[in-house]
Amino acid sequence: MRIGVDLGGTNIAAAVVNNSGEILLKISNPTMAKEGQEGTVNRIIGTIKELIEKYDSRAEYKGIGIGVPGVCDIPNGIVKFAPNLFWKNVPIKEILQKEFNIPTYIDNDANAAALGEAWTGAGKDKRHIVCITLGTGVGSGLILNGDIFHGAQTAGELGHVTVLEDGPKCNCGNTGCLETLAAAPGIARIAKDAVLEGKETILNNYVQGEDFTGLTAKEVFDSAKEGDLVANKIVEDVARYLGLALANVINLLNPELIVIGGGVAAAGETLFVPLKKVVEERALKDLYNDVEIVAAQLGNDAGIIGAAALIK
Amino acid sequence: MRIGVDLGGTNIAAAVVNNSGEILLKISNPTMAKEGQEGTVNRIIGTIKELIEKYDSRAEYKGIGIGVPGVCDIPNGIVKFAPNLFWKNVPIKEILQKEFNIPTYIDNDANAAALGEAWTGAGKDKRHIVCITLGTGVGSGLILNGDIFHGAQTAGELGHVTVLEDGPKCNCGNTGCLETLAAAPGIARIAKDAVLEGKETILNNYVQGEDFTGLTAKEVFDSAKEGDLVANKIVEDVARYLGLALANVINLLNPELIVIGGGVAAAGETLFVPLKKVVEERALKDLYNDVEIVAAQLGNDAGIIGAAALIK
Repeated sequence: MRIGVDLGGTNIAAAVVNNSGEILLKISNPTMAKEGQEGTVNRIIGTIKELIEKYDSRAEYKGIGIGVPGVCDIPNGIVKFAPNLFWKNVPIKEILQKEFNIPTYIDNDANAAALGEAWTGAGKDKRHIVCITLGTGVGSGLILNGDIFHGAQTAGELGHVTVLEDGPKCNCGNTGCLETLAAAPGIARIAKDAVLEGKETILNNYVQGEDFTGLTAKEVFDSAKEGDLVANKIVEDVARYLGLALANVINLLNPELIVIGGGVAAAGETLFVPLKKVVEERALKDLYNDVEIVAAQLGNDAGIIGAAALIK
Repeated sequence: MRIGVDLGGTNIAAAVVNNSGEILLKISNPTMAKEGQEGTVNRIIGTIKELIEKYDSRAEYKGIGIGVPGVCDIPNGIVKFAPNLFWKNVPIKEILQKEFNIPTYIDNDANAAALGEAWTGAGKDKRHIVCITLGTGVGSGLILNGDIFHGAQTAGELGHVTVLEDGPKCNCGNTGCLETLAAAPGIARIAKDAVLEGKETILNNYVQGEDFTGLTAKEVFDSAKEGDLVANKIVEDVARYLGLALANVINLLNPELIVIGGGVAAAGETLFVPLKKVVEERALKDLYNDVEIVAAQLGNDAGIIGAAALIK
């Protein structure tokens, strides 16, 4: 039996996971990150205690795995920097091991999600997998030779590969990062620009005066599905940039599988059809033939299952 | 003691390499690939026999390693496709093992060169290395977790990542591949265009009437070093595209080292200074701090030493 914890900026989700990667019991509590580092650590401990009590207080656990939204020193189990948690240098592994006397493993949340999909989701039986999550940002994790690939410390920042040399300015300082063009806020921004330019489009229906909050990536994909030409062009551009980035990853890493998850991926075939076309045009033929591009299967559970998979 | 073979389109180089990666004796014979597959195989066998006799016919060898300019089925030791050799499905491992009764290992030549630099060259003591060779094409090999990374079959095609969406057409079918903009023929083509546009540049000195064969990448870098503005602009563009590609690789793989070799890299600081500037601008700061970008150290011996390093 294992304990998997998915530590998010909003919620702490924890589950008892068996050795086949099935969730037996899952609970969730608010993170309340703004109340400070110590409080969040205590809520993590409290959530794990609650889970253990609710499941079976006499059960034995092989380990605790925790996925963290930040940069980790993995061997030492230290969260070096997690902006959404307001954390800096938190030795979470040591803290939890001391509290529960159970071996504890940490990793970045995108890596944990990738490992979850590899264990029981879309990537079962594959050894080389690129997982990408298109949401408010672009997260990604690499599974190479069957395990998370970390590089020197934190590989897999696919959101910050350049896909358009003089593209929009990214928070990271670069221009034209994939994240500025294929994550939800970027898509909403492009849609807003189209409306402001006075283009004839049903995207206008989601705008109330000067209030554009109703016009999100979801409305763009929905409108494209309904045949709106402006929305279609936006989706094609997303596919163009994302396809270019994925073709580059394919030519570099020759993966067997690319798994796409997150809110933007919920657009389904509306995105996947033009995306696969671009990838096929740009990737080397042999390497394109080696790879499948599929939707993530585990949804929000990928992080928790992957956290449990961190346990060796 | 090991035998390393670097099988090229022009020459077959073979060497006795000790277990520290030092070349003890090296010989070379012409490949004469045009004379057909069987003849080339016989010349490889002949070259190894000659090497064994010249070095010490009583020496014992742990293995034969051979780097091949083509796509390999590595576990089975078959060269699936090597255009410069006119080879298709040659079971070279089986052939050499039968002939010499010595365990034989094969890999792609770019991978072998990367492993050579990792063993005794620029990459000693590093676990995550990206090797790139800028010559008539752009070759590359990935060393991840201390060993060649193959992906599904043949990872590391960095020459075919897209760096300019609507760039020049590449032989692979894609547009804007790094190879079209940063390998020697691409650089020569851009220089030719500049001369044909009538720009004021010392590049003109290398052109005889309509004969542009004297205007190669080397003359472009030499002219840039002399302060020629047109040549400088070409070098800056090469640095821009190569830097974009390398920053993407850094953000994706977080390597500790990037090793650049090949004829174009011989330009030295003329290329490296603007290149590093672009990489620094585009790569994530933490990941940029993890990586060094250096020149290859082994030159043409990388392939032969790396071939010897294939032996397990």
